[in-house]
Amino acid sequence: MPSEHRLTRRVLFHETDMAGVVHFSCFFRYMEEAEHALWRAAGLSIAPRGAAVGFPRVAAACEFRRPLRFEDEFDVCIRVAAVTSKSIRYACTLSSGGEPVAEGTMTVVAVKHEADGAMTPVPLPPDVVRSIQVHSDAAP
Amino acid sequence: MPSEHRLTRRVLFHETDMAGVVHFSCFFRYMEEAEHALWRAAGLSIAPRGAAVGFPRVAAACEFRRPLRFEDEFDVCIRVAAVTSKSIRYACTLSSGGEPVAEGTMTVVAVKHEADGAMTPVPLPPDVVRSIQVHSDAAP
Amino acid sequence: MPSEHRLTRRVLFHETDMAGVVHFSCFFRYMEEAEHALWRAAGLSIAPRGAAVGFPRVAAACEFRRPLRFEDEFDVCIRVAAVTSKSIRYACTLSSGGEPVAEGTMTVVAVKHEADGAMTPVPLPPDVVRSIQVHSDAAP
Amino acid sequence: MPSEHRLTRRVLFHETDMAGVVHFSCFFRYMEEAEHALWRAAGLSIAPRGAAVGFPRVAAACEFRRPLRFEDEFDVCIRVAAVTSKSIRYACTLSSGGEPVAEGTMTVVAVKHEADGAMTPVPLPPDVVRSIQVHSDAAP
Repeated sequence: MPSEHRLTRRVLFHETDMAGVVHFSCFFRYMEEAEHALWRAAGLSIAPRGAAVGFPRVAAACEFRRPLRFEDEFDVCIRVAAVTSKSIRYACTLSSGGEPVAEGTMTVVAVKHEADGAMTPVPLPPDVVRSIQVHSDAAP
Repeated sequence: MPSEHRLTRRVLFHETDMAGVVHFSCFFRYMEEAEHALWRAAGLSIAPRGAAVGFPRVAAACEFRRPLRFEDEFDVCIRVAAVTSKSIRYACTLSSGGEPVAEGTMTVVAVKHEADGAMTPVPLPPDVVRSIQVHSDAAP
Repeated sequence: MPSEHRLTRRVLFHETDMAGVVHFSCFFRYMEEAEHALWRAAGLSIAPRGAAVGFPRVAAACEFRRPLRFEDEFDVCIRVAAVTSKSIRYACTLSSGGEPVAEGTMTVVAVKHEADGAMTPVPLPPDVVRSIQVHSDAAP
Repeated sequence: MPSEHRLTRRVLFHETDMAGVVHFSCFFRYMEEAEHALWRAAGLSIAPRGAAVGFPRVAAACEFRRPLRFEDEFDVCIRVAAVTSKSIRYACTLSSGGEPVAEGTMTVVAVKHEADGAMTPVPLPPDVVRSIQVHSDAAP
């Protein structure tokens, strides 16, 4: 049952900005992309067609050590750092060519999409609880 | 009843790429942004909360004359070029400092969002037909 | 001399995702957009044509309280929370219709763009130091 | 010497919009992503570090047949449709699960980045001319 996933990716042209490096907002997209790959590795989709429950982020943070540039290959290693009855916290490290690039965290909760578009917090669904495990190296 | 709208905007940092200019995909976003401003000027929203009908693009094209750069102020002038019972075609010209920047077109159709997520073509809703008029200078 | 700026904006269609709300990565773009408006209000550009010095982010974080939806009008209030000889830390609050939407922080440093593309840390330029002031309500 | 390339990709969450499908502007990004993969397959990078010559788009167009949704796997098949002394025209077809999704074209030119940021048209560099060939099935 996965508690960790490694995504390998190459920087796309449109992810760069006029400073010649990946725009910082894309690092949050990379973390989310790794999360969804972790869920697929667990046999789940975070947003299957017609799903009543969604998983919005309630917090995200990132520290940037080194820029990424066009066509750089990089890894996003995502770990499940903590799980409560209604939230999952991930810790991510990005690296490229063996060098640290960034470290980040994301916390997601489960919500029910109401008919009027509102989102009501709900417990994590049983299949998610069964399939996502805290990583043994997760800091407390 | 509006058949034309002019949107004035400034280039954002994240819209630039490593070539130092606005990424070409953003020009399509600028055209769409102008379309939605045109609809608001007509008293409509293209996607009101809970709407059963949506307006996906079936075609889009753009010719790029001159680059836009960070913090450049530019105009998007959008005109309704043609309307049929089920589609609207727009013509857009982008300019900055009196110089032409790009010209583009977009064609949108009306669709009904089915319960299973499918999209079924439907006629343009009456309030849209009433509110959107072909521009008198539209080429045939 | 500005230490705070308020940006008012409307949510664009392409900023939403399939959950029907603004994608969380866009909140970081909103904070950056407010930062650049603050600099303009101080008579500066964060990236003038041909600049040798740039201002990459070394850290960014955000907590999300409430979703934003298509065409929602919202405010981003950005304050200068701390300034050192080589970094600026901002604190941002996003709100819509009087309700809190998100709170975030960003820390930027000054770097020199070397000929080979590398970035070397440098002190904040004098015109920036003169023009950007810590907000009196900034938490220590 | 490649005249065609097939890129296989999965739709990312942030590429979707509130209509539940990939935003139309992303299709242009997919075409560009396939172009850069074609160049890599030819042993080239379209934007190597420190390059004096760039390849901006002067025209792009797309017709959209069918929506793409989150986690859909899709192919972008890109072909070199025409080459002149100073431009390359590509034709792209996107498909998913054997069904056509979209068809598009992009025309790029070569430019020299001047010291003041201006872009001057230049002939296609010899290594590009040698490495990129018109596809035999390209329509005239």
